[in-house]
Amino acid sequence: MTLWLDGAYLDPADASVNVADRGFLLGDGLFETMRFEAGVLRRWARHEKRLTNGLDALGVAADLPSDIPALAADLASRNGLDRAVIRLTVTRGSGGRGLDGMSGTKPCVLMTAGALPERSAPALVLVNAPRRAPLTLAAHFKMIGYGDNVFARREARAKGGDMAVMLSPDGHVACADSANLFWVTGRTVFTPSRDTGALNGTTRAAILDECARRNLHIEEDALRPESLASAEAVLVTNALWGVMLAASLDGRTLKREHALVRLIQAIESEAE
Amino acid sequence: MTLWLDGAYLDPADASVNVADRGFLLGDGLFETMRFEAGVLRRWARHEKRLTNGLDALGVAADLPSDIPALAADLASRNGLDRAVIRLTVTRGSGGRGLDGMSGTKPCVLMTAGALPERSAPALVLVNAPRRAPLTLAAHFKMIGYGDNVFARREARAKGGDMAVMLSPDGHVACADSANLFWVTGRTVFTPSRDTGALNGTTRAAILDECARRNLHIEEDALRPESLASAEAVLVTNALWGVMLAASLDGRTLKREHALVRLIQAIESEAE
Repeated sequence: MTLWLDGAYLDPADASVNVADRGFLLGDGLFETMRFEAGVLRRWARHEKRLTNGLDALGVAADLPSDIPALAADLASRNGLDRAVIRLTVTRGSGGRGLDGMSGTKPCVLMTAGALPERSAPALVLVNAPRRAPLTLAAHFKMIGYGDNVFARREARAKGGDMAVMLSPDGHVACADSANLFWVTGRTVFTPSRDTGALNGTTRAAILDECARRNLHIEEDALRPESLASAEAVLVTNALWGVMLAASLDGRTLKREHALVRLIQAIESEAE
Repeated sequence: MTLWLDGAYLDPADASVNVADRGFLLGDGLFETMRFEAGVLRRWARHEKRLTNGLDALGVAADLPSDIPALAADLASRNGLDRAVIRLTVTRGSGGRGLDGMSGTKPCVLMTAGALPERSAPALVLVNAPRRAPLTLAAHFKMIGYGDNVFARREARAKGGDMAVMLSPDGHVACADSANLFWVTGRTVFTPSRDTGALNGTTRAAILDECARRNLHIEEDALRPESLASAEAVLVTNALWGVMLAASLDGRTLKREHALVRLIQAIESEAE
């Protein structure tokens, strides 16, 4: 395999960062995980906007490659991948000790390409802790600090599941550990509102924008676990898989067919 | 300078971790920042407990050095430091892609020693965002993901201050960006309760334990910014400085002398 680090193509075994990198020491950086398929870096415009908004917020003046989709295509090709998961990581770089050590830092930019994981309908497990944190940077950007999500995923795995459903501090459904959630009951499609601390997902936003354009109603609100628990079908959405039906929620088998699910899938595949 | 990384003493310029380290990619790790002085790694027992509790929670089976205080003393000595700030960082190590890539990882352990920063009474600035996140791992352990605190510090600096005061999601005072807070009004000492998302600080805990032992009352509660704004004196507490008086809050000069402040300082210096 080959990756790209600060302008150089490297063997992963040779690719390292100094231990003073503030991404490593403080999670002082951002990332985007994207799907490369059929020559296209899917929804790059949405990923780019979230990333550059985050870099602006953090005050990280990274010298990003001028054509990231082309770099992603090149990296996929060098790794013999027609379809790939592309991760772009940007940290503030190496600095002095403590929160203040920001001056003179040179941002670190890493791109990796890996095989796109197989899609398979996840078994969802609702976890009680940790909760999503609505009024933090992680509610807007993909901050490196993903420890809570790792913890939630471990709990889901320990309970025989594949993916955790996380709550807001006041007990509303927020999102899955690495995806947003939509669910269908009767003729209504629900999705948690962003004020729950739901991930600011590119696929979620694409679906909502396209629904708005088509005048299709999605019930976007602070929703209780009881609403999710009574859903007929649950969809998880993220950049890697687009829309995927969940197999089960806390052991209860979910519907794998639903007219509204097909509609959402069609909307997502056509949305920018 | 010399640091210690996975068993080896290295020049910092030569000390690196692979870019697949989950600390770097996901903030999947913990740290402790400690004071070394007069041959002693101050409050190691408290730091060790928080660290090992965190490692247990994350499921990181790190092979920690058997005598960390001795290693800290050795590292301080090799760097010609009588007094030092010791940072111990433990990550899950390099793994596969995504949240699940935990199997086969070998934890990374890093210790650095630096000059203890000079004490100087900080100018505090209350920031509105981001908020502390009470029901997350960061409320219990020193997770690597410190991006919100870096962001808050940047805002405090931009406003001419030294350290940010952060709020809870519902607008109570939580803590400073790198310290806990106590304040004095009349004959009462206040400190935010942990349910605000206040840092689980070792110095804070030492003070509260010692006050309890002496039957001294500290008003530990969910406290509004108005309570802090009307304080006569404000104390910031952390492992590096112990107890330090703040110079000002949002531009308002604070008292630098107070009988209760001297009492808290005495209690902290004597507490385990």
